[in-house]
Amino acid sequence: MNSVQLHDDAIVIDGLVIAKWDRDLFEDMRRGGLTAVNCTVSVWEGFQNTVNNIVAMKALIEQNADLVMQVRTTADIRRAKELGKTGILMGFQNAHAFEDQLGYVQIFKELGVGVVQMCYNTQNLVGTGCYERDGGLSDFGREIIAKMNQHGVMCDLSHVGGKTSEEVILESKKPVCYSHCLPSGLKDHPRNKSDEELKFIADHGGFVGVTMFAPFLKNGIHSTIEDYVEAIQYIFNLVGEDQIGIGTDFTQGHGQPFFEWLTHDKGYARRLTNFGEIINPEGIRTLGEFPNLTDALLRNGFSETQVRKIMGENWMRVLADVWGE
Amino acid sequence: MNSVQLHDDAIVIDGLVIAKWDRDLFEDMRRGGLTAVNCTVSVWEGFQNTVNNIVAMKALIEQNADLVMQVRTTADIRRAKELGKTGILMGFQNAHAFEDQLGYVQIFKELGVGVVQMCYNTQNLVGTGCYERDGGLSDFGREIIAKMNQHGVMCDLSHVGGKTSEEVILESKKPVCYSHCLPSGLKDHPRNKSDEELKFIADHGGFVGVTMFAPFLKNGIHSTIEDYVEAIQYIFNLVGEDQIGIGTDFTQGHGQPFFEWLTHDKGYARRLTNFGEIINPEGIRTLGEFPNLTDALLRNGFSETQVRKIMGENWMRVLADVWGE
Repeated sequence: MNSVQLHDDAIVIDGLVIAKWDRDLFEDMRRGGLTAVNCTVSVWEGFQNTVNNIVAMKALIEQNADLVMQVRTTADIRRAKELGKTGILMGFQNAHAFEDQLGYVQIFKELGVGVVQMCYNTQNLVGTGCYERDGGLSDFGREIIAKMNQHGVMCDLSHVGGKTSEEVILESKKPVCYSHCLPSGLKDHPRNKSDEELKFIADHGGFVGVTMFAPFLKNGIHSTIEDYVEAIQYIFNLVGEDQIGIGTDFTQGHGQPFFEWLTHDKGYARRLTNFGEIINPEGIRTLGEFPNLTDALLRNGFSETQVRKIMGENWMRVLADVWGE
Repeated sequence: MNSVQLHDDAIVIDGLVIAKWDRDLFEDMRRGGLTAVNCTVSVWEGFQNTVNNIVAMKALIEQNADLVMQVRTTADIRRAKELGKTGILMGFQNAHAFEDQLGYVQIFKELGVGVVQMCYNTQNLVGTGCYERDGGLSDFGREIIAKMNQHGVMCDLSHVGGKTSEEVILESKKPVCYSHCLPSGLKDHPRNKSDEELKFIADHGGFVGVTMFAPFLKNGIHSTIEDYVEAIQYIFNLVGEDQIGIGTDFTQGHGQPFFEWLTHDKGYARRLTNFGEIINPEGIRTLGEFPNLTDALLRNGFSETQVRKIMGENWMRVLADVWGE
């Protein structure tokens, strides 16, 4: 099976996309052969604005039902594959939308939210993000995790601080993930994860999605898809072939105002980081170029079985586990 | 001047009351000769419910204008004294009502909120309370303090954790307070403050209001006003005669449902503590018995000047400083 056939046949899951949601993007997802995508619908928003984002996303899915469908289960994802559509899984990059209400975990799960990052860059009621000193998981955070375990919402730790991450990994009774991260072994950065951290999550049954976000790659905006494969290989060597997947962090369609919002605490307060220019790695500049990744993995010596696992089957297994299927 | 005359003549300030606000209570404040009271209008509430509490308080003040008046400045407090009314100063016991908006500090100041406790018992966006592990002041918390300093809102640390408290004391450019606390030198309790903590806040220009909340007193519900005076004497010996005042923590009029709300995180989640039966110390069971405190202080050897300072003049000086008068 050549790389085109393999990509066409495989379940392809992107564990993190925070793009500008519109028909152009969904068309590009179809060009990229994506079976399902974890689409961020909350970062700095509170409860009601997050519900509003979900309303907007559901309307957009309905308007583009020829291209996409909402998915809540891995059975839904398989159906999307059969129908030739891309499954839209809603996720948060911040538990802030739960506000101070444990009961909101179930509310959002019922609306279709399947993955929630515990913190985004800074402290919230649950713990602390990776851009400030991290005092660890709060006791309220432990209660939130119990609710997420109960209702089947995966804990994501990509932007979470080291201490909070470790404590979430130990607290959760279900596998947790870094949905989109890179190894600090290749580039030292507050958002990248050390070898110890990557091994720790894997040793506790967790999952690592690998991002290609240029500012965190060794070669920055001069990276190519080969740099991305190098990072995948690096993490693969640490966590093995069953606990690794893709989480690109595509921001496709967004302009500078969106990045200003992302990189300031609460969306407007102090600046936390400055990405500078964002150019995705050559060869995978858009979601439509996703087939190039399957090709690059094969060219770099991954077996067909390994490529299928990395491109989506591993995500399917761990999501089914967390979602209680 | 005997104790009755002195109490009648003095500025008498209670730095923390969280009672059931109604006419009966205001009448008792008048019996107690109170010149001004820091009245809690937010604990677990978010922004809008806190505004609703403020609306309710303003209506109540208007309906009882023969007994009370809203105060925002020490000049207002002096006017209340002249008019024979009790000044109602609004305060929060939790910065939670600021939610994620730095701009809400000014909004609430303009509504008349002059004192805000940074955390109530547990972690919020600013720091962590005294009933769980405390990772310290967050960077957002530092921005909140800058706004509180700028607009003249006093930082209160009574229910705040040790590490966050220390960092707020160091961060604030204006004096901060424990508005209502007791020394752990007399009884070890998560809510009580060590000698080191009491000296630290005083050495940095801060202020200590002494509570008589029975569960934190050495003799618990069997305490008398003499136990309260012992605690005042203990703190007086540590911080001196200029940085000490009264903050009773009267909960007058509230029943068990209110205490259940207070003692659970967010008002409903896990239990944080259990006060058990609450009986205020004999001799100061109600706000109306406040004159007994002036008498007890005099009987225990405090000079008239010291009693005036403890009963209200010290609060007046530090509030004028923080409020930028």
